[in-house]
Parts: sequence; C-alpha cells; structure tokens
Amino acid sequence: MNNPSPFLAATAAVDQAAIAPLPKSRKIYVQGMRPDVRVPMREIAQADTVTSSGSEQNPPIFVYDCSGPYTDPDVKIDIRSGLPALRNTWISERNDTEFLPTRTSRHARERAADSMLAALRFPDLDRQPRRAKAGKVVTQMYYARQGMITPEMEFVAIRENLNRRVYLESLKNSGPDGEKLVAILSRQHPGESFGLVIPGEITPEFVRDEIARGRAILPANINHPECEPMIIGRSFLTKINANIGNSALGSSIAEEVDKMTWAIRWGGDTVMDLSTGKHIHETREWIIRNAPVPIGTVPIYQALEKVDGRAEELSWEIFRDTLIEQAEQGVDYFTIHAGVRLAHIPLTARRLTGIVSRGGSILAKWCLAHHRENFLYTHFAEICEILRAYDVAFSLGDGLRPGSIFDANDEAQLAELKTLGELTAIAWQYDAQTMIEGPGHVPLHMIRENMELELDWCKEAPFYTLGPLVTDISPGYDHISSAIGAAMIGWHGTAMLCYVTPKEHLGLPDKDDVKEGIIAYKLAAHAADLAKGHPGAQIRDNALSKARYEFRWEDQFNLGLDPDKAREFHDETLPREAAKTAHFCSMCGPRFCSMKITQEVREFATRHGLTDSAALLKGMEEKAAEFVETGSEVYRKV
Amino acid sequence: MNNPSPFLAATAAVDQAAIAPLPKSRKIYVQGMRPDVRVPMREIAQADTVTSSGSEQNPPIFVYDCSGPYTDPDVKIDIRSGLPALRNTWISERNDTEFLPTRTSRHARERAADSMLAALRFPDLDRQPRRAKAGKVVTQMYYARQGMITPEMEFVAIRENLNRRVYLESLKNSGPDGEKLVAILSRQHPGESFGLVIPGEITPEFVRDEIARGRAILPANINHPECEPMIIGRSFLTKINANIGNSALGSSIAEEVDKMTWAIRWGGDTVMDLSTGKHIHETREWIIRNAPVPIGTVPIYQALEKVDGRAEELSWEIFRDTLIEQAEQGVDYFTIHAGVRLAHIPLTARRLTGIVSRGGSILAKWCLAHHRENFLYTHFAEICEILRAYDVAFSLGDGLRPGSIFDANDEAQLAELKTLGELTAIAWQYDAQTMIEGPGHVPLHMIRENMELELDWCKEAPFYTLGPLVTDISPGYDHISSAIGAAMIGWHGTAMLCYVTPKEHLGLPDKDDVKEGIIAYKLAAHAADLAKGHPGAQIRDNALSKARYEFRWEDQFNLGLDPDKAREFHDETLPREAAKTAHFCSMCGPRFCSMKITQEVREFATRHGLTDSAALLKGMEEKAAEFVETGSEVYRKV
Repeated sequence: MNNPSPFLAATAAVDQAAIAPLPKSRKIYVQGMRPDVRVPMREIAQADTVTSSGSEQNPPIFVYDCSGPYTDPDVKIDIRSGLPALRNTWISERNDTEFLPTRTSRHARERAADSMLAALRFPDLDRQPRRAKAGKVVTQMYYARQGMITPEMEFVAIRENLNRRVYLESLKNSGPDGEKLVAILSRQHPGESFGLVIPGEITPEFVRDEIARGRAILPANINHPECEPMIIGRSFLTKINANIGNSALGSSIAEEVDKMTWAIRWGGDTVMDLSTGKHIHETREWIIRNAPVPIGTVPIYQALEKVDGRAEELSWEIFRDTLIEQAEQGVDYFTIHAGVRLAHIPLTARRLTGIVSRGGSILAKWCLAHHRENFLYTHFAEICEILRAYDVAFSLGDGLRPGSIFDANDEAQLAELKTLGELTAIAWQYDAQTMIEGPGHVPLHMIRENMELELDWCKEAPFYTLGPLVTDISPGYDHISSAIGAAMIGWHGTAMLCYVTPKEHLGLPDKDDVKEGIIAYKLAAHAADLAKGHPGAQIRDNALSKARYEFRWEDQFNLGLDPDKAREFHDETLPREAAKTAHFCSMCGPRFCSMKITQEVREFATRHGLTDSAALLKGMEEKAAEFVETGSEVYRKV
Repeated sequence: MNNPSPFLAATAAVDQAAIAPLPKSRKIYVQGMRPDVRVPMREIAQADTVTSSGSEQNPPIFVYDCSGPYTDPDVKIDIRSGLPALRNTWISERNDTEFLPTRTSRHARERAADSMLAALRFPDLDRQPRRAKAGKVVTQMYYARQGMITPEMEFVAIRENLNRRVYLESLKNSGPDGEKLVAILSRQHPGESFGLVIPGEITPEFVRDEIARGRAILPANINHPECEPMIIGRSFLTKINANIGNSALGSSIAEEVDKMTWAIRWGGDTVMDLSTGKHIHETREWIIRNAPVPIGTVPIYQALEKVDGRAEELSWEIFRDTLIEQAEQGVDYFTIHAGVRLAHIPLTARRLTGIVSRGGSILAKWCLAHHRENFLYTHFAEICEILRAYDVAFSLGDGLRPGSIFDANDEAQLAELKTLGELTAIAWQYDAQTMIEGPGHVPLHMIRENMELELDWCKEAPFYTLGPLVTDISPGYDHISSAIGAAMIGWHGTAMLCYVTPKEHLGLPDKDDVKEGIIAYKLAAHAADLAKGHPGAQIRDNALSKARYEFRWEDQFNLGLDPDKAREFHDETLPREAAKTAHFCSMCGPRFCSMKITQEVREFATRHGLTDSAALLKGMEEKAAEFVETGSEVYRKV
C-alpha cells in the first residue's frame, strides 16, 4: 500500500480537534434501570433572554449524541487502548457466548503471525473473541422474540426519547416560566407518516416489539462491546451512515481513524469502512476498537483483495473465512449482495449505466465467468448461521441499484428488491437482524414507489438508502442532490440514509467532505423526523428560532448542526464580539430590523394579556399611540 | 455609504472571470420568424466514445442559457455603455409608448442634478425613458389577451423548447447512429405533475394563452430593452432568482454588478436588487443597464431610505415617486407587500418569530404607528395603473411568511395569501402581470398545502417561493435545507424559486455564496422539471450519465452544473491529465471498476442483438466461456 503518512501503533494519537466538546455543550448521561445503562446525550446551554422587563431563563436543549466518549473531557482517550467495553457485562451475563482460544479465521491468524505488520497493528487486547455457544442464538432479534428486554434495548429506548423527556423534566420544577417555555418549545406540527403510528413515548417494550417483528434492527456484534447501542427502524429517529475507507490510491490508516472520529462528532450514527487497500484487516481493527457506533463493511471487497482482484477466483470458502474474520473483529453489519442473481444480470444490459455498485459488479463478474448462480445466494443459509453466531446484522445489498435517472426503478432493480424480500424471510427464520439497501439515482416522483415496494416485498424490514440523487447533473454537489432525495424517502419511512459527499463520482472524500456530507444528511434526516412527527423533534428548531428571534447569536450558532461554520460565516461580516449581542445583523444593518419590530408587537400583546385577534386589533390602537410617543425607535438598546 | 472599493464610472470594468465561455461551450442563437428574434443557448461539445470496435460520435448538448452576451466572445462587453437594447425595435413597433422628455420621478431628477454623484453615476444613455401613451396598456398580458403573439412570446417559446428541439434536429441527419442516440438520450420517465398537462412542444400560441389567463408572466419592462425575454409559469421550466444588493454595512456598487454577472453565469433566471444603502438609485442603474435578465426590486426599501429609515414617515406620495423612478429605470418586477393588512398584524403576535420579512415589518410598523390600513392596499388600483404603464410585473409579497417551522402555514400567513388572491384579481383587471410570493420555513409534509391553497386562492397565478427551508437547525447550510423544500414545491408547481445562500440568517452573501446558492437552486429546479416531466429535461442527465459510464471525464465535468468544481474535485485525487481519459477513477482504483464490467455485459448483448432477457440469459453462457478465455480482465486498455 502506498502509505502517505504511516500509522505506527506506538505513536498513534487522536486528532485533538475532533474531541473537544462542541461550544457550550457538555456530555451528560441518563441512567436506566440498572446503573451500567448510562445513555449519553449532549446538553447545549443557552443564555438568558434579556428584555426591558427583566430576564427569562432559557432551558438547556438536549440532543442525540453519536460522538461517544470522545467529547467527554472526563474520559481519557488513548486510541492505542481503544474505548471502554461498555457492553461486556451485558453480553457475559446472558451466558450464551464463549471466548475462543484463537481467531477462527485463517486469514486473521496469518495477519496476526506476520511480524512485518507489527508496527501497523492495533495493540493486543487482553480479551479473546466471542462466539455463540453451540446451539445458542445471540441476536437482539432472538432475544426480542423470546420476550426479553436486553440492556441494549433499554439503552436505545432512553436514547430515542432523550431530548424530549429530559427537556420536559428539566423544566418541570421551574415554575410558570418553565411551563410557558414547555408549552412553546415542545409544541410541534402533527406529522404525516404514511400510516405509520409513532408512539408519543418510546418504551423498552416498544423497542423489543419492533425488533421482534423485524421492523427495526439493533446492530450489536458481541465482539464490539465498545459500541453504544442504537436502533434503525422507521418508528425511530432517522439515522445516517457515513462511509469512510481508503482505496489503492490514497489515504492511510491514521486518516481513516480520524475520519471515523470526525464523522461521529458531526452526527454519523453508523460508519461503514469501505477500505480496499492492502491493510484492510489492520485498518478495521483500529476503527472498531475506537468506534462507539456500529461499524458496517462490505466483506466482498476484502475477499476480492485476497484473490488479488480477480473476481472469478472468488469462492465461498474465501468469502466464508472473511465473514468470520470480520465478525470476530466486531463488525456490526455486513452488506451482502445476495440479490444479484445470475438471471438478473441480463436485465442490466440495456441500462444506460449498467451495474454501478462495486459489490454488484464483482458478483456479476463472478457469475458471468462461471455462468453459475451467485454463491452468496446459494450459500445464504450458511451466511445466516455465521451472522447469528455473532449478531452481525444483514444489510442486504442493492448491487443492481440504478446509477442514473434513466435506470431508476427498472426491471433489474426491482427484480433484485423482490429477491431481497425473499432473503429477508430466510434471515428472519434464523433470527438474523436484517435491513435492505436501496438506491441510488431516482427522480422525485419515483421515490415513493421505492419505499412502498420495499415495505411490501421486504415486510417492513428497515430500508437503508444511498440518497437517492434526484438528478445526475450535479457533480461536485451530489451531497445536495442526494440530500433532497434522502429527505423525501426518509419522510416516507427509510430508516437510515447513507450519506453522499460532494466528492461523489469524482474522488475519495477527505475530512472536509465527510463533514459536508454528514451535515447535509443530518439535515435531511431531521427534516424527515419533523415531517413524520417524531415526538420532540421540533424542540431544537423551536429553540433555535427563538434564539434567532431574540438575537441570541451564540445560542443560534450553538443550537445548529455546525456551530463552527455558523460563527465563521457571521464573523465574516460582523467580526467584533459586540456584534454577537447586537440586536441586528449584517443583512439589514442597525437601522432597520424586522425581527425587532415584531418583538414589539408580541410584547405589547403579552403585556395586555390579549388572547384573541379581535382584542389584539382593538389594543393596537393604544399601541399606535404609544409607539409614536416613544419615538418609534425600532432599534433600542436593552 | 461606506464604500470599500469605490466604483468610478470612468474605469468601471467587468470581471473577466465572469465572462469567459464555460469549458467546451459556445453560445449559439436560434432565429425565430423574424430575424431579430435570436434566442441564445449554450452548446456543450462532447468527445467521441471510443471502443474496441470503433468510435461513436456524441452529439452536442444544448442548455438554457441565462448569461446573456457576457459569455459570447463575439460581443464586446463594456459595462460603461451597457448591453445592446435588443427589444428596442419590438417596443417601438407596437407604437403604444412615448419617450418622456425627462424623468417623471422627482427623486430621479434630484439624483441626476447632484454633481456629487457624477463619479458614481452610470454614463448617460442617449435614450429617454418610455411610458405607455395615454389610454394605452403595454403589458404582455394585455397583448396576450388581445390575441397578439409578441416577439417576446415567440422568443420564450423557442427558448423553452430549445434543448430538446435543437438536439433532435442536430441528430436528424446523422443516420442510424444518430437515431439510436436520440432514442437513448431523449427517453425520459413520464412525469407526475399534479394535474398539470405540460405540452410536448411549447408553441408561441401556448405561451400567449398561459400569459393571457394569468398562469405565467413574462417580465419585460419597456425601459429594460436589454433584457432577453423569459417566462415564469408552472407549465414552463422552473426558474430561479438570485438576490443581490448591499446593505448599510457592506459592499460597493462594483461588487453588486459583479454579483449580477456572476449570478447569471451560473444560471440565475432573474436577479433581485435588494440594496438598502445610500446609492440605491445609482447601483440599480448600473445593474439594469448591464442585465440580460429581468431585475426585481422591493421599492419599499428605497422609500424607507428616503425617510431616513423612519417607517412611520412613509407616505403614498413617497412610495409612488419611488415606483415611477424605478419603473422608468427599467425594473421588471416589484415586490409589493399589499397583503400585510392591519387586521393581519395581530395574528402574528403569538408567533415564535413574528414578522421576518423586512418589507412586511416596515409596513407593520407603519400600520401600527398610524393605526391605519396599509397604504399599499388602499392604493392598490393606482399601483396597478403605474405598473401597467411600464409593464412592471407584480410580485405580491409575503410580508407575513413564516420565519420558523413553528409558524408554518399559520393563520397570519394564510390570511395574507388569501388577500393576495383578491389583489391578483384586481391586478388582472388592469392587465398587470402578477406572481405570488411564498414561504419561508415549512416542514416537508406541509409544503403541498401551500401550493394547493395558492393555486386555488390566487387562481393559478405563478407562485414564487423562498425555499422553503424544511428545518431551522441548519445555519451555514440553509441553501441545502431550502433546496430540499424548493425541489418539492417546484415539483408541485412553483414557477420560480428564490435562492437561499449558505449565509442566510448569518450575513450578506459574497460571490462564492452567490454561486453556491445558485447551483443548489439550479439543481432543485431541474429535479422539479424531471419530476414534472418537462419534455427534454432528462436529455442532459442522460448525456452526463452516458459520459460518466464511458469514462469521458471531461464531458462529465462539462455537462454538469459547475464544470470548474467537478474538475477541481477530481484533480485533488488524480491530477494528471492522463487520468482524464483513464477508464477508472480514484474511488475503486485501476484494478477494479464496476462501470467497466457492465460495459462488457452491454457490449455482449448488443453484439448478439439480444432483445429479451431470456435470450440474454442464454447468451450469457457463451459469454462466460469467452470471458474466462480472454483472461477475465476488466481493466483493458482501449
């Protein structure tokens, strides 16, 4: 591998810029029924509202936090030791796994024995890999179907409710002022969710039931105890995934670990490591040991490396060894392109852009070379056996997704989707958690059909889409083109949105691109949550808008998805510190401000206790007189 | 005015970077029935497709072009003389206007007489302002209702059809290869347009009829003969507007002229000059004289400057003088906030963010100070009289648009919209062209209601929305949040989308922000056109995707919305010139490429003339043998 900045285990260090807490934010934990269920969230403090008639306390706002221990100054980060194994006890207590004396995978053992790799390798852990005991199933789906509520399920139930519940509690005892703020900030528009009923309160029982019926997955490999539980399903908050990974042409292990910590800082709910270079195994180990979020991979990429890129030399044996290798490292979900059946390949022949999925084309090549059915399809039951022994979730790959508007919703794509539905039914027989990958490139008016067919054919298994891009003509801006499609399909019920960066179709994303992609997708996911009416989703919008309206600039920055950029943009025009408290902004200047004038309308109404429009209108007469009297000054220092 | 870089008439020059043709692009003109109807478009040349079996010519692709003469190397640009007055003859021939000996507006005469302004002033034109002769109406709506097809209407009919018509013609005579390409590239998904039937061919008669019934406007002030006609209506291509304009705090005249040429280079269909500083009059003159696109303004901003920012001192007389001043300069549409009625103001009192429109709050302040009905409402008929004497179109302002998700679709917003419907009916009695402004901040599931109510209450007058933003939590990324809403509402039938830049809510956009905003909105508008099924809209997507699939990197860059950025992003990973013809990209590297493998599938199918899946599948067996025989090399130099 061309390694531009060698990553040596002895000196590995995390990028400090990625671990400082965000402005005015602190990490807090909410405890569950048992003391070791400690659910993290980010508390954003706000300034008081100062008016001529006194000041009003604005409550802190709580937001879902993917960044793990990194943004907690009380946790010492040393990426050479990895993160604390917070799920260790839970897994052990279930007493259904055993520690393996050595790695099962031949390849993993070879890598471990290769002294040339010593400098690159993640330092040895003092724990062995786990596997289900013979005859045991260790998936969250299995537990859910047995009626169990695992600590992982309780964790996600608290996590999904967090912003609303903690917010309401924090205001409970703050008197009439607090009650008024609850009334304003927690009020939201009823959503429209295409027949889905989202409960007002996410309970552990609800989490369990959604997992049991396959409508949600909780990716939680028993060999990734560092992972903070999260859930993917359309009754829950819309999640996003960030892809990282090097290729033969660029980037080092260090950069990939950096990208992972950077991605979760800005809100990546899961991270897929799509590396294709020479040190896939070692890169992945560093990432997983330091990842508080589920890690997904596409095992066929590594299998292909093992046969030096010759797809026709792939075999079930090599693939199987790769699955086990990765499952024992702790990968939480695998993209498995078992729907690329031999009979589907000819359906792509008259496409404009053929097969654009890397995994899909690897398998198409194998099928063509051998004129045989895809070995992932023929060995699907064995794959299920492996995955459920570690609780790796399926992400059934859409190897035939459309790569252009022209190819959207075509025969090849839909034939594969139907197959994925059949495979889902099989996976569920094995209690293997399953989600379904989706497109790709789809014009706006054809997005809904994707969701409807998926729900129908795949029995409501969570949908996980790449965008979709709503036009092909935006190279350099495909994060925007795809965020449009992502928001739409998220609203319709897609559970997780795979981000697209500005570099899509053009090159590998660097850290800046990762952040751009993440923010665009957090925004799309949140827009979907608002539209579906997720309880509490609107609290953050309301708080930010209130801050904006009251010229609390710092709060406006801090409540946004990217406080740093908001502040930087504001400072380009009004850099002085005083401008942060100014009751105007650079758009209208100090002389006239629309926000300010309407505050006067509101203050007037409040002061007079006016409760309906007629009364208000009447009261306006008085206001008019007063207004002229006081000099009609809109801009008045408070 | 704080003028950081004084703009002196003697040395004024256009930014050269804004006028060079885009890569591989040239300006062409299509002639109408009369020789002086010359409709511009941009032709993008493509490279040949080279395969092992020979090469195939790819046709040039034609795109709608807003950039005017700037990108035509045959036109000498001198911003001190302004653009050629291409509509002069058309206006004169109608023989319904007269030249005025002097400006009607008192303010305009004062500015002209002020020697202190000489250095800033646009050099005198050798033409006087025009006005309708007494008793004449000179609006395109009037002409349309009389059954006339003006040269302006023919111009837009050609322009709207351009990409498809010229494309098809250019291929007509290129034999079977050309026919095959027509079949592939011009094929598109049938759109879904909510009951709107978009004709396969836009004729001048159709343009006339849409204008006559008020479903479209053709902004064309008789004093802006430099403007290339364009149309705004939901049966036509979705348009976008870019806002420019300085504030008391920043930017010079030069910067604003630069922003205008920059905005139209990237696709701004109209430009609004929202300046609020001391030299509004002079800035506007420079902009209009050099603008090949319609220019919109919000006259109340300038009226407010005339009373030193004291809204309560505004009067109908001052406003009237401002309307006439701007109409005689050539402004093509005016935002008129006549829907902010006194009775609506109390409806905003319990909003989270009150009145966020600058114009709306100016008028609210005036209404409150006087406790009287909005003078724009009480004088609306007189405003119609003025506007129709110059053919300035109404853009009925949404002074009460929601400034937060919380306030979306509320009583105040809808009360104003209903009033705008009533005013539309009055404007139409005067044959005044009219469009309706819309929000703002609206969650995804409440967007459609906006469009439906507008179509109903405003009798299908064109809707012109600001975004809407689908969440409030994205300061620094509001171009994305609003592009999501814009694409949605554009699909539902909004005729023009007012862009939002990344600086929204934070500061004034600079040139980079203008470009980011424009591209995000071109993308949203195009996504809407694809979804509505505008004939020919998909040709560019298909061509770009074909180029992408065939590794014609340069064509992929050039067919996109921003060739410069696409190239720059690609070069960050693979900078060498050779990589531009490489049959792989940095994402997968040279060893494996999904695009390449599916080309092989397709070539095989074509070679064997296979026309259905069963036959293809059968043929695959042969392919499998051949594949292994030739070494199964995916990456093969051609």
